[in-house]
Amino acid sequence: MTRLSRRHPRYRSLRVRARLAAASRSGLVAPEGLIAHGRGEAFDYFLGERTRPSAARAQSEAARWLLAARHPVVSVNGNVAALDAPGIARLQRAVPGLRVEVNLFHRTPERVARVARRLQKAGVTGLLGLHPDARIPGLASDRAKVSRAGTFSADVALIPLEDGDRAEALRAHGTRVIAIDLNPLSRTARAADLPIVDELGRALAGIAAAAKRQRSRGGARRGRAPSAEALLADARRTMAGNLTQGPEGRRRRPGARARGSAEGETSRRTGAAGPPV
Amino acid sequence: MTRLSRRHPRYRSLRVRARLAAASRSGLVAPEGLIAHGRGEAFDYFLGERTRPSAARAQSEAARWLLAARHPVVSVNGNVAALDAPGIARLQRAVPGLRVEVNLFHRTPERVARVARRLQKAGVTGLLGLHPDARIPGLASDRAKVSRAGTFSADVALIPLEDGDRAEALRAHGTRVIAIDLNPLSRTARAADLPIVDELGRALAGIAAAAKRQRSRGGARRGRAPSAEALLADARRTMAGNLTQGPEGRRRRPGARARGSAEGETSRRTGAAGPPV
Repeated sequence: MTRLSRRHPRYRSLRVRARLAAASRSGLVAPEGLIAHGRGEAFDYFLGERTRPSAARAQSEAARWLLAARHPVVSVNGNVAALDAPGIARLQRAVPGLRVEVNLFHRTPERVARVARRLQKAGVTGLLGLHPDARIPGLASDRAKVSRAGTFSADVALIPLEDGDRAEALRAHGTRVIAIDLNPLSRTARAADLPIVDELGRALAGIAAAAKRQRSRGGARRGRAPSAEALLADARRTMAGNLTQGPEGRRRRPGARARGSAEGETSRRTGAAGPPV
Repeated sequence: MTRLSRRHPRYRSLRVRARLAAASRSGLVAPEGLIAHGRGEAFDYFLGERTRPSAARAQSEAARWLLAARHPVVSVNGNVAALDAPGIARLQRAVPGLRVEVNLFHRTPERVARVARRLQKAGVTGLLGLHPDARIPGLASDRAKVSRAGTFSADVALIPLEDGDRAEALRAHGTRVIAIDLNPLSRTARAADLPIVDELGRALAGIAAAAKRQRSRGGARRGRAPSAEALLADARRTMAGNLTQGPEGRRRRPGARARGSAEGETSRRTGAAGPPV
């Protein structure tokens, strides 16, 4: 394996990639999860590897929903645990009452234990989903298995990196769904009541920060929340713009076009700039 | 694992994905290879999962270059072997004198043996790269290791799913480089003398078919070959167009916009139509 240089323009993305490959070798992440991560990488690259202003607003709205919910839950799969278990723990601290539940597409007792260990080590408490006692109707696979006290009775569910079938089944179950998904065309993003088109780590950090702000000032700021369709359209436009620009535009900096917009650019920027892929 | 329905609109892509995941479990494909495949999936989805007319022309030009070369070689890594070993064997039959050489980023004796077995079982003959005896200058990693009789002395090299460093090093070495790469922004695609922005299986089949046609009629058809920049720009435009259309446009059929163009649509279509991702 080649060593990663910190000065590489895409150091962070490449480090995340290396971490996920290692997580796959240890069995935490399924092979299919690696492929899904690759798809996400492509979308994030198009997005400019930074949080769009519209995504920041969606994160703020997500915080509001989670804080206002009676039974908020966040559903965690292998990729989420491998990519940002500490982010889940921080979100749980920022949102009192947030239940964390393990849910795996490729479910084996070993993987459940591995994911649980990773989350608990990061500081997650009261973990659910280890011994599911209910099912989300309309799903044939292991993904249907949930905890009655958790996802089954949740009024608001945050589902990062979820698959389309499950997102749709949760909505049909009557749950308000907040998705974190880098693909604005995916069924998950389209099924969500509130789609956050952003990279997992940036999105979790954004929601947690917004929740803290809202709690410290006793509520969310006024203002109309962006519609799901507007959020997806904005992401699509940004990605298409970065693609059309081509390598020269991207060499300057991905997302640079968007920064001239009236919305301004969010200052929370953890993504690295520039090509090459 | 859920069973795949043949009627799923993206049956082929999902089947390929399942095959690659299985190849990873057997050690043929490295975890990093799965992530790379996921990136490719996203790009192919944007492309409409079909061969663009410009890519078909690039494949025809590639056939011309390979047939005219003194020492043509195709470089094969784990993903290529897992995805389409039979396609490599068919290409070798269509291009007399084409050498096939194994080259792995994550090189271990076991993986080399696995890739070799897969290729030989598919019908590839005279396989090179098992005992490299030369190096491509300017590469630190195992990817530098090549066969003197193969890649080192090749005047034309076809490099499917190659990484950017190696593509650039091959060009600096004086080799004419034909890349197969779904990412029109990648360094590999940009470094290539002839970038083919298409899915591996479709591209290999397209080059082999063009080589057969050209041999049977004693040469390639006249006509100016598209420039590398024009090929990349066309792919970027198509992808951006499919993104901008959004789910409604895509629900109709990915790539549908492009089919109204003056170029017409190639009839060689192995990709499945439509969403959802």
